[in-house]
Amino acid sequence: NKQEASIQTKVQELYVYEINERDRGSPAYLRLSKKEVNTLGDLVPFSNKLYSGDLQKRLGITAGICVLIQHVPEKNNGDRYEAIMSFYFGDYGHISVQGPYLTYEDTYLTVTGGSGVFEGVYGQVKLEQIVFPIKLFYTFYLKGIKDLPTELVTQPVTPSPSVEPSPAAKATKPQATIPNFTN
Amino acid sequence: NKQEASIQTKVQELYVYEINERDRGSPAYLRLSKKEVNTLGDLVPFSNKLYSGDLQKRLGITAGICVLIQHVPEKNNGDRYEAIMSFYFGDYGHISVQGPYLTYEDTYLTVTGGSGVFEGVYGQVKLEQIVFPIKLFYTFYLKGIKDLPTELVTQPVTPSPSVEPSPAAKATKPQATIPNFTN
Amino acid sequence: NKQEASIQTKVQELYVYEINERDRGSPAYLRLSKKEVNTLGDLVPFSNKLYSGDLQKRLGITAGICVLIQHVPEKNNGDRYEAIMSFYFGDYGHISVQGPYLTYEDTYLTVTGGSGVFEGVYGQVKLEQIVFPIKLFYTFYLKGIKDLPTELVTQPVTPSPSVEPSPAAKATKPQATIPNFTN
Repeated sequence: NKQEASIQTKVQELYVYEINERDRGSPAYLRLSKKEVNTLGDLVPFSNKLYSGDLQKRLGITAGICVLIQHVPEKNNGDRYEAIMSFYFGDYGHISVQGPYLTYEDTYLTVTGGSGVFEGVYGQVKLEQIVFPIKLFYTFYLKGIKDLPTELVTQPVTPSPSVEPSPAAKATKPQATIPNFTN
Repeated sequence: NKQEASIQTKVQELYVYEINERDRGSPAYLRLSKKEVNTLGDLVPFSNKLYSGDLQKRLGITAGICVLIQHVPEKNNGDRYEAIMSFYFGDYGHISVQGPYLTYEDTYLTVTGGSGVFEGVYGQVKLEQIVFPIKLFYTFYLKGIKDLPTELVTQPVTPSPSVEPSPAAKATKPQATIPNFTN
Repeated sequence: NKQEASIQTKVQELYVYEINERDRGSPAYLRLSKKEVNTLGDLVPFSNKLYSGDLQKRLGITAGICVLIQHVPEKNNGDRYEAIMSFYFGDYGHISVQGPYLTYEDTYLTVTGGSGVFEGVYGQVKLEQIVFPIKLFYTFYLKGIKDLPTELVTQPVTPSPSVEPSPAAKATKPQATIPNFTN
């Protein structure tokens, strides 16, 4: 039927900011290579805060691990990581993704699935680095799910180094969070 | 056609128990944070045994890694992990999942895919902790696949701390295992 | 419509070789178990080179991590790993997979998703070990995507221990690479 068909093919965009406010002990750079420069063998578990694209609401957290794949001196001493992570949206559920995280350019990761309102999701997500490594902007291109909850559909603030969550969102005031936001 | 349509939309439930019988050296709690309390940076590879929901058959194993994300003192000294793991069902194949594992409440993880009879699978799985951290009950809600093999479709034993696999299943007697059960 | 229908159901085979040319510092065997024999707790980040099935083109790299699950002395001192990895194909995007890697037999892993021309992909992939652990052959069975780019559709060289990439591919000559091959 029509509802099914629209679930199958429609692309929905979802914008979020990931911000490291330095209060979660993240990232934990595990220098297991025992080399001075970042080297294959290093692992980086992390968890940051997640805000809506309009920066008016605290949504939840990110959680995952980056596997250092390659140090790239010629890219401004950058690094290639393999990222395996989830985005948590409180009672709405989560989205899991995997793919490249490069410190020196934007990348696309794959959406491997989700729970709650994201059950059955697939697609990809664009990662844009705003301020390395503490401010990132993501554009999800989501398929396979019903219409997103209204409060997740926002007009994003244009990414720039100066963007900040609203004070209410930062303070997790009730009107500036989603239901049972992940913390 | 009708078969295709039923593959696309039907939800099939699959019940399994994951039990740590203390004979696989699991879990390996890697305290890479070097902190006394569980802290971001710690990693926990694990592999436990997998039994059918009616506890009459040994199916295989689980295998994966939990990334410690956050210690939560106010939740009975609990922890939030990001879990990345697979469930192995002998010749039938495997299911991969990712998502939240909280020591203090039930969670839903996403099914990211599968092989064998689970090729093309998607959906989510509910994780219920019965006896931390050695007895867990999972309800898979699976889509995208043909009818599950009959011997995987069982009436589950209601989860409780006292549940145990049948002696035959525990002893991996031929009639109490699936074909080439993963060990 | 017909195009949609063919995207949903058609299986496309994609053949690639993964080769460790000993120039990427891979694998990094992290003996975190601190045991002399491979033991749960050990982790193995890795990244190797990826060539087309006909060995005429350098495609990119693999990147990921293997979690040591079990040492299996009776299988020629083999090991079971849980593999979480991606295959990178330059401008074409990437494919993420998860599942069993056994040093002593062929396995099927699940395709959890992809980006670029692989956006929306699902299915499974057969892993064949040719020369442990430096030469592997993969057959992807891909669904959910449009027709693969022509240059990725090749007649594979039959796997054998003596296969080698063409000198031009090994030297990443322009005519022997795909656009912006991942390096």
